[in-house]
Amino acid sequence: MINVAVLGATGYTALELIKILLRHPQVAITAVTSRQEGSPPIHSIHQSLAGRLNLNCEDLTPSEVARRAEFVFCCLPHVTSMEAVPDLLSGGCRVVDLSADYRLKDTAVYEKWYGHSHTDAARLGKTVYGLPELWSERIVGQKLIANPGCYTSTAILGLAPFIKEGWIAPTGIIIDAKSGVSGAGRAPKLNTLFSECNESIGAYSVGNTHRHLPEIEQVLTDACGMAVEAIFTPHLIPMDRGIIATMYARLRKPAGDAELIAAARKFYAGKPFIRVVDHLPTTKDSAHTNYCDITVRNARGQAIIIACLDNLIKGAAGVAVQNFNIMCGFPEATALIV
Amino acid sequence: MINVAVLGATGYTALELIKILLRHPQVAITAVTSRQEGSPPIHSIHQSLAGRLNLNCEDLTPSEVARRAEFVFCCLPHVTSMEAVPDLLSGGCRVVDLSADYRLKDTAVYEKWYGHSHTDAARLGKTVYGLPELWSERIVGQKLIANPGCYTSTAILGLAPFIKEGWIAPTGIIIDAKSGVSGAGRAPKLNTLFSECNESIGAYSVGNTHRHLPEIEQVLTDACGMAVEAIFTPHLIPMDRGIIATMYARLRKPAGDAELIAAARKFYAGKPFIRVVDHLPTTKDSAHTNYCDITVRNARGQAIIIACLDNLIKGAAGVAVQNFNIMCGFPEATALIV
Amino acid sequence: MINVAVLGATGYTALELIKILLRHPQVAITAVTSRQEGSPPIHSIHQSLAGRLNLNCEDLTPSEVARRAEFVFCCLPHVTSMEAVPDLLSGGCRVVDLSADYRLKDTAVYEKWYGHSHTDAARLGKTVYGLPELWSERIVGQKLIANPGCYTSTAILGLAPFIKEGWIAPTGIIIDAKSGVSGAGRAPKLNTLFSECNESIGAYSVGNTHRHLPEIEQVLTDACGMAVEAIFTPHLIPMDRGIIATMYARLRKPAGDAELIAAARKFYAGKPFIRVVDHLPTTKDSAHTNYCDITVRNARGQAIIIACLDNLIKGAAGVAVQNFNIMCGFPEATALIV
Amino acid sequence: MINVAVLGATGYTALELIKILLRHPQVAITAVTSRQEGSPPIHSIHQSLAGRLNLNCEDLTPSEVARRAEFVFCCLPHVTSMEAVPDLLSGGCRVVDLSADYRLKDTAVYEKWYGHSHTDAARLGKTVYGLPELWSERIVGQKLIANPGCYTSTAILGLAPFIKEGWIAPTGIIIDAKSGVSGAGRAPKLNTLFSECNESIGAYSVGNTHRHLPEIEQVLTDACGMAVEAIFTPHLIPMDRGIIATMYARLRKPAGDAELIAAARKFYAGKPFIRVVDHLPTTKDSAHTNYCDITVRNARGQAIIIACLDNLIKGAAGVAVQNFNIMCGFPEATALIV
Repeated sequence: MINVAVLGATGYTALELIKILLRHPQVAITAVTSRQEGSPPIHSIHQSLAGRLNLNCEDLTPSEVARRAEFVFCCLPHVTSMEAVPDLLSGGCRVVDLSADYRLKDTAVYEKWYGHSHTDAARLGKTVYGLPELWSERIVGQKLIANPGCYTSTAILGLAPFIKEGWIAPTGIIIDAKSGVSGAGRAPKLNTLFSECNESIGAYSVGNTHRHLPEIEQVLTDACGMAVEAIFTPHLIPMDRGIIATMYARLRKPAGDAELIAAARKFYAGKPFIRVVDHLPTTKDSAHTNYCDITVRNARGQAIIIACLDNLIKGAAGVAVQNFNIMCGFPEATALIV
Repeated sequence: MINVAVLGATGYTALELIKILLRHPQVAITAVTSRQEGSPPIHSIHQSLAGRLNLNCEDLTPSEVARRAEFVFCCLPHVTSMEAVPDLLSGGCRVVDLSADYRLKDTAVYEKWYGHSHTDAARLGKTVYGLPELWSERIVGQKLIANPGCYTSTAILGLAPFIKEGWIAPTGIIIDAKSGVSGAGRAPKLNTLFSECNESIGAYSVGNTHRHLPEIEQVLTDACGMAVEAIFTPHLIPMDRGIIATMYARLRKPAGDAELIAAARKFYAGKPFIRVVDHLPTTKDSAHTNYCDITVRNARGQAIIIACLDNLIKGAAGVAVQNFNIMCGFPEATALIV
Repeated sequence: MINVAVLGATGYTALELIKILLRHPQVAITAVTSRQEGSPPIHSIHQSLAGRLNLNCEDLTPSEVARRAEFVFCCLPHVTSMEAVPDLLSGGCRVVDLSADYRLKDTAVYEKWYGHSHTDAARLGKTVYGLPELWSERIVGQKLIANPGCYTSTAILGLAPFIKEGWIAPTGIIIDAKSGVSGAGRAPKLNTLFSECNESIGAYSVGNTHRHLPEIEQVLTDACGMAVEAIFTPHLIPMDRGIIATMYARLRKPAGDAELIAAARKFYAGKPFIRVVDHLPTTKDSAHTNYCDITVRNARGQAIIIACLDNLIKGAAGVAVQNFNIMCGFPEATALIV
Repeated sequence: MINVAVLGATGYTALELIKILLRHPQVAITAVTSRQEGSPPIHSIHQSLAGRLNLNCEDLTPSEVARRAEFVFCCLPHVTSMEAVPDLLSGGCRVVDLSADYRLKDTAVYEKWYGHSHTDAARLGKTVYGLPELWSERIVGQKLIANPGCYTSTAILGLAPFIKEGWIAPTGIIIDAKSGVSGAGRAPKLNTLFSECNESIGAYSVGNTHRHLPEIEQVLTDACGMAVEAIFTPHLIPMDRGIIATMYARLRKPAGDAELIAAARKFYAGKPFIRVVDHLPTTKDSAHTNYCDITVRNARGQAIIIACLDNLIKGAAGVAVQNFNIMCGFPEATALIV
């Protein structure tokens, strides 16, 4: 039994994480934190937890957390996260950090995209990026894992087999991605109000200005062993959860749909959460699960690759528990197949 | 041609109001105001106005407004509104006030429900409540009209014919109302975030604690000449716009559905925006219009009255222009039938 | 390990049932049926089952089903269901029937509301109605259970404690219920098209014409030992799943909110799926779970009782498995707390 | 005053068309048709028309229509449309055909994509394609206009300025388009049920199999004077109405965002329904209007062009009335700016 804390427990990702951890046979949740005044019960923040978790949401320091927990899921925003992680580690905790603070390898890249100097730069480039389908062996036994971004996982899981095996060109890739609104977080903002999002779709961060782009390119370049370059356009969709990435890349050799699908299936053989499918997946197929659904079509020499996942589960909380399982030596799918 | 100003132009009601006024043949919009810094173009706040209205949104005092406009639609929040209205009137403007500040007749009732002392109390009880279907003759020639609340109009328009003509008991009435989210305004709040509202329905202000209740009872009591008492439960529905009120009241005499429908039809004869229908209306039927759809059924001696309208149009901006038309002597439906 | 079949597997309830059964440690799904031609794989009908259940959807007779399964969840439509159940029982299967065919006790009432003569009338009045929170002891060891309707469960679970314990009058009750669209089933119909339901709310079966009304009255009358009469108005809400029932009943004695809440809490003590809460529940709180959330307020001598549940889980598939667990002697919550 | 008929009046496009025509000062609607039995009132099919149009929906032959109307909007499905149009024309009617039957120039292309021989092939290649922003002068005085498809208009309006003026390469274009569900029509189908579409997004007709592709390529090739080739992927979005096309094309020369925007603005100078905007448009900005919003960004030598419109208005009924206005010599925007 591992004592686990969830930091930054008021957000949507933390809520999903708590629900998964509640059914994990090796986990006891011993602390949930936020900066809310008065240490309210967690079920007063997330009403869906009524009767399921009897803890107050406290404003704890990292060292107080370290006294209560051996393992920490850090759902704090970036910058705040890198202020807490070093103390958690030195307090003896193992950590999955769900923020962006430890994902990029290069301090300058971090500072350019996040507009903030990095206060724990020594760990950049040494922290393993937690995408288990690419390199679960790197994750085993780590003390700190950088959990992937949601768009990032979707794009990478769709593209990696085809780039790495030489089916598509690694540059000139178009990633047209569409996400449900929960990905934008739970802090009240005009652009995520119901009456702004509902009955509407729009692109944002158009022109390669979204922070998940350098992450996508870095991880694919690392995983595939060649420089990957893409154009990434995210869209906001009037639904709670789910991401679909529709991706376009030039085929380097003639290939039929079946051949391409077979290649992806082989690439992900034995991976319990990747479903390479013949049909066209929708986000509903994988909603509320840790699955990522992938398919591909050829049109006029372009591969059209489609990948879908639940942004809060496989794109955040689910893969975080997958990383936890691998770090701790539990079966990878524990608590994740429901 | 009347020069018109819209105060508090950043909200959803103001946007609908501007769209209606843009097609009004007797109106020139000469000022739109808000407290936003830097006087941004109105189409940068409401992108749908691109190419349609070339005005900046300015932070103007009431006397500045009075120099630019003869008629003012005041979309400010309550309290803020009663700080502006006296100066607008003394500056020579005629005003439709869309806030709650002039709706109630009794200062003590206002202060109880709004938790704020009234700074223009002399006008309470003298300001005409602008529900044209009940008393358009009172509205003609007024300088100030209190525009009704959205739930209020829905409930009153459904109940008035049956209370006034003695079909139903005036007490023990149940008003179970359901509204789209735009009624909650455009200020970012947790409970109106997309990911909170979508895929969910909940009641709020349960137990007669919603501010529209005293307004409903006051106006129905006034209109029907007998003390009206109700229980009012509003619900938030995952849609942008529309209100349906499902109302239950004890029948005072036996009556078939057809007889009740005919009574309502007679009551509203000649009213261009009330459609008493045989079928069961949905909010979609009247969305984006100034219509209110009403029907009624009898079950076990209870009248079940259903009324639907668009909360932003017939529940706010549309009836405001209807009041404007009546105040100014224009045909009541000008700019309102599209 | 129990071999289980799901009949009528193409609908939304069957899909949820399959997902729950997949995580039940004592269940092997051995057959799924439908009338679809060509015995397609179940995951071609429900794409979300890709990689999770490797069975074809076959058009099997009851006796063929009985050869493959010991226990059957019958998700067939009414009439079709009572044509299959007798053969399933005589073939040795135990059955939870999710249709309406065995819920009513009186053949005449069935034939009036369903417009069809009952071909297995001998079992009416002898089949136990499967609402475990009211009488789990009746369910133990049964061969056939009639699974409750979704509106029915919501209304009964909210009202039962207050009627039975004498807090509210058993007649004159108003049940204003609102349901997500999945409750209307998966057969293509105009009124459940996206573009008809979205951005709209409407009442239907107004005037006590909905088939769940006689079921509500029968079960409450049975459970509470006094004749219960209600007015029931269902509404269709633009969301997938969830029901909220807002119910109004005359209090027979003065009572504060806390006292009423405490009474309900006592009534349901030890019931794992009922959460009597102080806050106002929304349907989102219990979505995708087997919980039913209940609260109550007093206004002007009326109890306002609110009950929420997921129509596909606690309102159908979840309670079906709860009945299965009780029938078979498994812990009641097996596979139902996730 | 022109007597106008609407054929195939039960669909969503016809409903929008009727609403526009009701406010057209030069139009009297004299017939609405469908194959529904019993000639029901049009407001029993479209409840939103209650009190607005007092006509029955009749099953009329083309010659009966021609006796009642001078101008016909043909909202019939393809194939059915080409069976009616010749008789309407020979009966003296002028026609805007909203189906696909007269859009393509080449009979073989029609027959390949629509799987049906063309029974009025002599008119293919001679019928003007009604996209007024490209060639309103071709439309003046025509007897028959082929009204564009909704995806088609979105893609063409966004791409035309940049292809024609040489900014982007005419081949290798990616059109990633997203549409609300109303575009799929009002005939009940599984894939447009609320519970299938809501909370989900998916691509369909992936791999250049959608019928709007040959139309896009034909019209752009004609308008721009060079062979245009694209990859077109449509997606279904959980909203009623609106299309956004996010398009990617290789820039043929260096260009900044402002320069590209200015070029589009110049191309569409004087066109009342095209808004070339600096900001990123969402579909909500143009919903319920006849506007098309366009913007463009440059990223790594790719132009990212975004175009939004309301699929039922600017994508169908609105442009149909725009064509009607031009054909008849009325100001182009009559009844279309509200």
